[in-house]
Amino acid sequence: MSEALVIRPLRAEDEADWRRLWTAYLQFYDTTLPEEVFQTAFSRLLEQNNREFQGLIATVDGVAVGLAHFLFHRTLWATTDTCYLMDLFADPNVRGQGVGRALIEGVRQRALAADIPSLYWMTQEFNYPGRTLYDKVAEKTPFIVYEINS
Amino acid sequence: MSEALVIRPLRAEDEADWRRLWTAYLQFYDTTLPEEVFQTAFSRLLEQNNREFQGLIATVDGVAVGLAHFLFHRTLWATTDTCYLMDLFADPNVRGQGVGRALIEGVRQRALAADIPSLYWMTQEFNYPGRTLYDKVAEKTPFIVYEINS
Amino acid sequence: MSEALVIRPLRAEDEADWRRLWTAYLQFYDTTLPEEVFQTAFSRLLEQNNREFQGLIATVDGVAVGLAHFLFHRTLWATTDTCYLMDLFADPNVRGQGVGRALIEGVRQRALAADIPSLYWMTQEFNYPGRTLYDKVAEKTPFIVYEINS
Amino acid sequence: MSEALVIRPLRAEDEADWRRLWTAYLQFYDTTLPEEVFQTAFSRLLEQNNREFQGLIATVDGVAVGLAHFLFHRTLWATTDTCYLMDLFADPNVRGQGVGRALIEGVRQRALAADIPSLYWMTQEFNYPGRTLYDKVAEKTPFIVYEINS
Repeated sequence: MSEALVIRPLRAEDEADWRRLWTAYLQFYDTTLPEEVFQTAFSRLLEQNNREFQGLIATVDGVAVGLAHFLFHRTLWATTDTCYLMDLFADPNVRGQGVGRALIEGVRQRALAADIPSLYWMTQEFNYPGRTLYDKVAEKTPFIVYEINS
Repeated sequence: MSEALVIRPLRAEDEADWRRLWTAYLQFYDTTLPEEVFQTAFSRLLEQNNREFQGLIATVDGVAVGLAHFLFHRTLWATTDTCYLMDLFADPNVRGQGVGRALIEGVRQRALAADIPSLYWMTQEFNYPGRTLYDKVAEKTPFIVYEINS
Repeated sequence: MSEALVIRPLRAEDEADWRRLWTAYLQFYDTTLPEEVFQTAFSRLLEQNNREFQGLIATVDGVAVGLAHFLFHRTLWATTDTCYLMDLFADPNVRGQGVGRALIEGVRQRALAADIPSLYWMTQEFNYPGRTLYDKVAEKTPFIVYEINS
Repeated sequence: MSEALVIRPLRAEDEADWRRLWTAYLQFYDTTLPEEVFQTAFSRLLEQNNREFQGLIATVDGVAVGLAHFLFHRTLWATTDTCYLMDLFADPNVRGQGVGRALIEGVRQRALAADIPSLYWMTQEFNYPGRTLYDKVAEKTPFIVYEINS
């Protein structure tokens, strides 16, 4: 991992970088979102509120190269909350330099600081680059996901 | 579906039934939970609070035969929340009578009433009885789940 | 398992039963096959030749209720051959009576009699009734199947 | 793809290269095989017999960098045989240069020359480098594999 890699909370002045990185991430899922969603998301991420999504940004030599969005939420199987890592993105230009791994570790540390011992995320079965990392730092569960969109 | 099947919110007087059903559900996952977790869970479920887990109970001819636990939570990809169905259980003695399907539909209706258009849940890849139902009422996504337990 | 359940090699006089059972099996895969394929298949199955497909039929009280088609073939990782179970079918009317299990065991015994220690088959990920049985009598491998049809 | 990439049938003088490449491939599966299996396998591969495994070797500028082992065998659902690609290996040092793809295409052409229209193989669900290629050149089927080893 580069000495110059920094993981820190998202800040208001990161908006342009954040929009660029999240747009690139959403493209990976063939998704575009309306401006209203970008504004609402960024506003929530800046609240630094344990009941809202929080954001981390990764910089290398001061250049924003990755992001993570996570939410603490209730789980009924424990009295403590759990942490859901919803979005994780590292610029393909810096892949292999530990940015994704450092972002996951950053989220894990923030969860632990809030007394939250578990962290989970979902990924598409065929996300091979992502899974190559996840197999090293996490446990694959036997769970799959069903959904209903009304 | 039986005429006598009723899906309704969990109530304080359901505690004994709820403990029986949830214990049976947790056994399916080879899980036991401490008394503290049962108490905290039941207390939260009774709050009828859109930021906490909510519970539905299914009765047939007045006998409690199933339950569902769900949570509305933020999603960053939309301005509306999403609905996470965490626990779903139908007494094996009433399997095939539409209890599970009615519970999912009950959760879906409560999400819609809160302007929440999407509902999702996780299930183990080898939960064949569950998936037989889920394939009929929902979409299997390509998502799998990773976790870190510190 | 019923006392009256018999597993035996396919015989020429089984043709009508075999056609009925294999047709039902193929329907499960939304498949119909031309008459030429039925004739060639039945002819090969009757050869009792270790280089061709072989067939077993299951009868309960003399009524044909299931079939298995298997092939011994080379594997390069061993000097012995392996056994591929291509088709396995039990009439849905007799499900739960051990017909599928007895057919698998019948194939396994015939492989062992030919000094073939391993038996494998493929099934669709969502074949829940089948997998319920297979999980009890076999090991699920991490292998999935790719194909090219020119 | 390099101009200098050649796909050709395995020959007796390839034995040292073939042993090196197959050993490396088997290491990927944490497998070692006894000398007897190597000898039997190589002997069968040299037979150029449509009822035995056949082998292809890939060379770049005359250096052996990959291999494929395949078997034509009966399928009961058609009057023609099918082609099973059992082993496919490209030296990691030449990954990304089209060696694996050219070997698959070589097998496909040899199957077509024998009037065999279909080609299939199995791979571990978590073989991400392999699947990255397979997703481009083949169809992922919904089939998974069960086995019994007596």
